[in-house]
Amino acid sequence: MKQYFLIALLFVLSPALRAQSNRSADSVMVRKIYDEVLSHATCYEHLEYLSNHIGGRLAGSPQAAAAVEYTRQAMQKLGFDTVFLQPVMVPHWVRGKKEKAMIIEADGVSSEVAVCALGGSIATKAGGITAGVVEVKSFDELEKLGRKNIEGKIVFFNRPMNPLFIETFKAYGTAVDQRWGGAMQAARYGAVGVVVRSMTLKSDDHPHTGSMSYVDSLPRIPACAISTLGAEKLSARLKEKPGTRFHFDMHCETLPDELSYNVVGELWGSSGRQNVIVVGGHLDAWDNGDGAHDDGAGCVQSIEVLRCLKAIGYKPTHTIRAVMFMNEENGLRGGKKYAELAKINKEYHHAAIETDAGGFTPRGFSMDAPEPFKRQVRKFESLLEPYGLHDFGQEGGGADISPLKKEFNTPCIGLEPDSQRYFDIHHTSEDTFDKVNKRELELGAAAMAALIYLVDRMEWK
Amino acid sequence: MKQYFLIALLFVLSPALRAQSNRSADSVMVRKIYDEVLSHATCYEHLEYLSNHIGGRLAGSPQAAAAVEYTRQAMQKLGFDTVFLQPVMVPHWVRGKKEKAMIIEADGVSSEVAVCALGGSIATKAGGITAGVVEVKSFDELEKLGRKNIEGKIVFFNRPMNPLFIETFKAYGTAVDQRWGGAMQAARYGAVGVVVRSMTLKSDDHPHTGSMSYVDSLPRIPACAISTLGAEKLSARLKEKPGTRFHFDMHCETLPDELSYNVVGELWGSSGRQNVIVVGGHLDAWDNGDGAHDDGAGCVQSIEVLRCLKAIGYKPTHTIRAVMFMNEENGLRGGKKYAELAKINKEYHHAAIETDAGGFTPRGFSMDAPEPFKRQVRKFESLLEPYGLHDFGQEGGGADISPLKKEFNTPCIGLEPDSQRYFDIHHTSEDTFDKVNKRELELGAAAMAALIYLVDRMEWK
Repeated sequence: MKQYFLIALLFVLSPALRAQSNRSADSVMVRKIYDEVLSHATCYEHLEYLSNHIGGRLAGSPQAAAAVEYTRQAMQKLGFDTVFLQPVMVPHWVRGKKEKAMIIEADGVSSEVAVCALGGSIATKAGGITAGVVEVKSFDELEKLGRKNIEGKIVFFNRPMNPLFIETFKAYGTAVDQRWGGAMQAARYGAVGVVVRSMTLKSDDHPHTGSMSYVDSLPRIPACAISTLGAEKLSARLKEKPGTRFHFDMHCETLPDELSYNVVGELWGSSGRQNVIVVGGHLDAWDNGDGAHDDGAGCVQSIEVLRCLKAIGYKPTHTIRAVMFMNEENGLRGGKKYAELAKINKEYHHAAIETDAGGFTPRGFSMDAPEPFKRQVRKFESLLEPYGLHDFGQEGGGADISPLKKEFNTPCIGLEPDSQRYFDIHHTSEDTFDKVNKRELELGAAAMAALIYLVDRMEWK
Repeated sequence: MKQYFLIALLFVLSPALRAQSNRSADSVMVRKIYDEVLSHATCYEHLEYLSNHIGGRLAGSPQAAAAVEYTRQAMQKLGFDTVFLQPVMVPHWVRGKKEKAMIIEADGVSSEVAVCALGGSIATKAGGITAGVVEVKSFDELEKLGRKNIEGKIVFFNRPMNPLFIETFKAYGTAVDQRWGGAMQAARYGAVGVVVRSMTLKSDDHPHTGSMSYVDSLPRIPACAISTLGAEKLSARLKEKPGTRFHFDMHCETLPDELSYNVVGELWGSSGRQNVIVVGGHLDAWDNGDGAHDDGAGCVQSIEVLRCLKAIGYKPTHTIRAVMFMNEENGLRGGKKYAELAKINKEYHHAAIETDAGGFTPRGFSMDAPEPFKRQVRKFESLLEPYGLHDFGQEGGGADISPLKKEFNTPCIGLEPDSQRYFDIHHTSEDTFDKVNKRELELGAAAMAALIYLVDRMEWK
């Protein structure tokens, strides 16, 4: 009788027992992934090369071409199942000779301030432009001032990022419209140029570049970013000394489009090569720094995910694909091309993960995905919390994978690193290798490898 | 009838409604604390002064005296209810002239390596000591080798911190016995000196100091730390070139004890001045760096907690006390004196919070406290998670508050910042102000202020 009872009990309990045993096997596998990465990762060395030997690699530049070749060779040396390039035509904007800017007080006293051209801006006329300045904090204010106050002037957008947000990306969101749309809005009222306060919470002398835009219906006027200390100084002078003017001189230009590439490496999956989980970052980086955090880190971490899974002998169900996207910073052509090719090649993307928020300690994952997918992923929380991953509640994926979302409704995931230091260096000459911590970088790679292992085996539909 | 029903329903629901309304008020207050700190904190400026204008401030040094005076004045200027000093006699160890060390190969070829005296070590004899080297990874290995292999030699402890721990403090725990006990253990077998691999996961040329100990029953032999790259080099030479010797020359000494102070600032509580919540860090710091993270950060954050609570007009139940403890690094005399005085003055400590793990982004709080206290604190998790505080599960409090725990069983709490970068700079010349991020520092202060507000109103017994 007792035996029957035990068999019956096992029968009742077995799904629970099986689930528990799977969970325990998963836990062992996650530990194995972290051990592998923390012992043998190569991402830090790859990043050292990308940052210190190649440096800033804006789309269309010789450095971008070097980065394509370097990462292609790096993945080939690591023995991935295949490594290939996806050709894509990209915009080619160049900064030219270093920018110069001055605050000129009414009595002629002038002082230099640090500026840099915004990406995509036209040059100033030869010798630069000099004009009176209208300081505003919003587009509404601009509208109220109207053409009579703005025509012939330089508009100075000086709304700081809001420091009260804990996540600095949210603070960025409160100010970046000035950079992207400032020149368009100011041109509407006859401004001759635009100066935008740098997108950072830090007070320093480093101007932050970043993309901006024009529309064909309005005149194109030159736009630069001014360092935060420069912005404070300009604002103070405008208040103290009416009649203060601003001068800036820029030599940037947009050249014809260039041929470039997304760089792709694969570990083939058992369910067919065209069933894919993609993990990626963007290979292009602004020219004023070395693009160590933005987004060299994401590229080398994506390579590390494949290296690690291969090293521990994991045989994935889906093809795990590392992609170094080209031209995220000023065009997203690589991301768009990737989705376009996925459609042509009839690929199925089980999930897409992007890491483009710096190589800092990972705190969790954001998601832009259907609810059932999110629910399944959130079940992994308890497996990942011992590794410092607690935050699974944010919305968001990534720019390069957003065309996949748009085209196929692919579930998109973003690695969420600690955000406090990111905007100190974002798009500046300070985005250099020495700002990256080896272990923080490795922990980001391990977090993605662990999640990919779990998602590879997950059903959610 | 309907009215009666509603009244009855309100009666049943009211405790739940009250709890919900308290929670909502708490949530508003926590937000207010963060807003105040992120807008008006003075901790970064205080830390700039402590780091760049005072620098390393080991107990007994003129810099420690300057730091006492500076923080006393800073708290007085902030208008706390009272600011006072607690006199305490502290050990006074000095490094003297900069250390030198060389690897000397059998053929006479020699190369300099970076070392520093461990805190508390005796000097070498004049001109330094030169001897053969025995490399070990553990005290067991030392015992197996025995006196016949060790007598007259320098013992080289070269067990690295284990990189597989996610929290670096746990990795530190796997190796620091060599630094603390290495000289004692090696002296047991007749060694003439000790070289210890630096306590860090980073490969670089910076030696990490830290405290070590002697016992009266064994000879005192000089002990230094060698940089990790130096350790790798020494280890490689010992393998490749038998007969390789080591030379080191140190001038440190222990002087007579000095009078120093804990620095205390208070906001008085409504329940009586002697009912206390203490928040503190240690003011002393190793002499080779500026003690910016260890533990200048903890001191200025503790001051900021009081500044913020005062600024928002919070009237605490308990007296909130910021303490800059003296001599955590090499004696803990300040922490012991604090508990001794608490006993003499018949104080009741509701809770004690220490921050001594660097001024990095806070991740949560550890606790060394009775279970009912922990349970109550963990109920605050949902209030603090929006601020990036997720980890409430670790065990631990802090060294300076441990005498309170021992004497009164006071519930102890430790702020848990991200640990990845800490041991890169811990106890080295690299622990400087530029390694501290303003917002990370502020978030730590805000986290503690928020928790103190919640704990101040919490009953747990």
